[in-house]
Amino acid sequence: MTDYYSDFFRVVKDDPDSKARAGVIKTPHGLVPTPAFMAVGTRGTVKAMGPDDLAKVGCKIILANAYHLYLRPGLEVIKKFGGLRRFMGWEGPILTDSGGYQVFSLAAIRKLTPEGVTFRSPYDGALTFFSPETAVMAQRDLGVDIYMCLDECAPYPAEESATAKSLDLTLNWATRSRKTWDPSLGQALFGIVQGGFYPDLRKKAALAIRDLDFPGHSIGGLALGEPFSDRLTAIETAQKLLPKDKPLYLMGLGQPKDIVAGILRGADLFDCVLPTRNARNGQFFTRKGKVNILNARHKDDLSPVDAKCHCYACQNFSRSYLRHLLQNHEPLFSRLATIHNLTYYQDLVTQAREAILAGSLAEFVQEFEASQTSGEPT
Amino acid sequence: MTDYYSDFFRVVKDDPDSKARAGVIKTPHGLVPTPAFMAVGTRGTVKAMGPDDLAKVGCKIILANAYHLYLRPGLEVIKKFGGLRRFMGWEGPILTDSGGYQVFSLAAIRKLTPEGVTFRSPYDGALTFFSPETAVMAQRDLGVDIYMCLDECAPYPAEESATAKSLDLTLNWATRSRKTWDPSLGQALFGIVQGGFYPDLRKKAALAIRDLDFPGHSIGGLALGEPFSDRLTAIETAQKLLPKDKPLYLMGLGQPKDIVAGILRGADLFDCVLPTRNARNGQFFTRKGKVNILNARHKDDLSPVDAKCHCYACQNFSRSYLRHLLQNHEPLFSRLATIHNLTYYQDLVTQAREAILAGSLAEFVQEFEASQTSGEPT
Repeated sequence: MTDYYSDFFRVVKDDPDSKARAGVIKTPHGLVPTPAFMAVGTRGTVKAMGPDDLAKVGCKIILANAYHLYLRPGLEVIKKFGGLRRFMGWEGPILTDSGGYQVFSLAAIRKLTPEGVTFRSPYDGALTFFSPETAVMAQRDLGVDIYMCLDECAPYPAEESATAKSLDLTLNWATRSRKTWDPSLGQALFGIVQGGFYPDLRKKAALAIRDLDFPGHSIGGLALGEPFSDRLTAIETAQKLLPKDKPLYLMGLGQPKDIVAGILRGADLFDCVLPTRNARNGQFFTRKGKVNILNARHKDDLSPVDAKCHCYACQNFSRSYLRHLLQNHEPLFSRLATIHNLTYYQDLVTQAREAILAGSLAEFVQEFEASQTSGEPT
Repeated sequence: MTDYYSDFFRVVKDDPDSKARAGVIKTPHGLVPTPAFMAVGTRGTVKAMGPDDLAKVGCKIILANAYHLYLRPGLEVIKKFGGLRRFMGWEGPILTDSGGYQVFSLAAIRKLTPEGVTFRSPYDGALTFFSPETAVMAQRDLGVDIYMCLDECAPYPAEESATAKSLDLTLNWATRSRKTWDPSLGQALFGIVQGGFYPDLRKKAALAIRDLDFPGHSIGGLALGEPFSDRLTAIETAQKLLPKDKPLYLMGLGQPKDIVAGILRGADLFDCVLPTRNARNGQFFTRKGKVNILNARHKDDLSPVDAKCHCYACQNFSRSYLRHLLQNHEPLFSRLATIHNLTYYQDLVTQAREAILAGSLAEFVQEFEASQTSGEPT
């Protein structure tokens, strides 16, 4: 690896009582204080958010999906812009997932070989070939700051033998991705630890990925419906074996309690569609639990969704008005609700970071847990 | 009328070569330079726009619909907020239409009598009674700055006898509205000139409305599918008979060329769903005619929709990206497109006003007409 990556991630402070740490990821397009939560902008837009909104909410890095963008609008279009950032008008860093998960969940697969996967585009039916090499080159061309190896995410539940076979493919692909990656471009490639919920497979995965010497690591295959305790075990098993001087990204996580549990277990990066998707359905994350805004008791409630929240929605609008907007399918609703939920997630990771730096993480966790159980009836 | 209304509208400058004028409407919640265009926020929200967006676009006054808000969320809810402005978080002036048009176009009417109209709410089927008196009181309770008499808008085409009968009802209702209105509250009630496309009926309407001494006047029943020249004749017929020291509002107009034609004929206020509705369908108003963003030729076009436009969408996003958003039904599209179209309409009336003040209205009109015919293929 080039010297560039010696400076890529820095731990600012370790929590003495857990594996949590406050850090900084350095990218060509800005610093990312960690722990960090990435809003999901699958198709080059975080649903209902302009880049102006994202900046105000406090997003420092966002996530996009190479698979979707590769199929539409296509790499040729985005290359004309010099990359995804200029295409979508977002000035900060971007992380992309390769879209391995989407290849296997959305596409009509024609053929899976060790070489790669041939599938029909769900957009227009075009026959498309994706390999570890094309995934690296696509993400390189998107001009993003951090990107992922193509992987196969074993379903849940899955037999151990099937999970092992899938892991072998993922590790083979990781090796080839690592070879294809050009470290001189200032874009960080992360290796992904799969292995399902079989500790020996997670260990094997973590060691193999560690040995490939990526600038950062991801844990994939989580939040597929497994018990919370199994999820934590998988995280702990992998984290233990991965070098602590590289950032750790928990892919697709999750509920606020997943974020806090992940931070306590040494994770630095998170992404999830929950705050954005649930917003559009009327579910708000608050310091007093979740609020379903369609509930009739909000009809003439003049108070904001979360009295302690500093977001544009809570500072300017009541539960009554938000309910009115959703009830009438007004497009403004999605924007306001998403602004609130992303602010909640940003505040969560920012306050966790401050607590780590201040040596008060235990109090932060205690307060968080109380907020989750106080839950007003929704 | 109280003295308050002596100061309600002021003509700053008359154009010497047409009936156009630059003026100012004074409301309790801000000044409105005229000619002014009002974005349509039927249900207490201009579709896809936050109040922050509206302010940035340059909106000085917006329109809402009493009929819709009366039915949902209901007056009791909005009264708890002290009015619509606080409910929707908009700090500037608001004008409401009574919703006469909506009563007759949306509802299943049960009974129409001179007393009022009984109909079933399209929201929940509830039997509702609307009269000139209830319309005045509802709009008073919404706390808006300017509001309309309940009227009946004759359909197009309509026989002269049917139009005359409809006009008699509207004039009867206007008389009762005027009596119900409380001028001491600082809210201006406008009388509406109906009469279809029969000059004698328009004259009768204009004289009767004039004699009722409202603070301002509206011309209704336009843009129903009639030829452009008939529309202009109806405007001219009414305008000639109305006092020039009161503001004139052309309801529901219109296309950019309607706005310019209306300004030249002495109109001061306009509203229309076109800029917002067409935005959501991908049609942009530009200084080079209309642009349909879904057209394939925009696929990899890095240029903004309108190179001369200062709006957030044109300053930050390409045609290619906007097309990508719409193609994928991304909610951000509606916001960006609406910001652009409302900016176009705001610029149109603002530049017309500046031209009137500068004595260069003829040049403005010439330039406008050239822009409408230059039309790039869309």
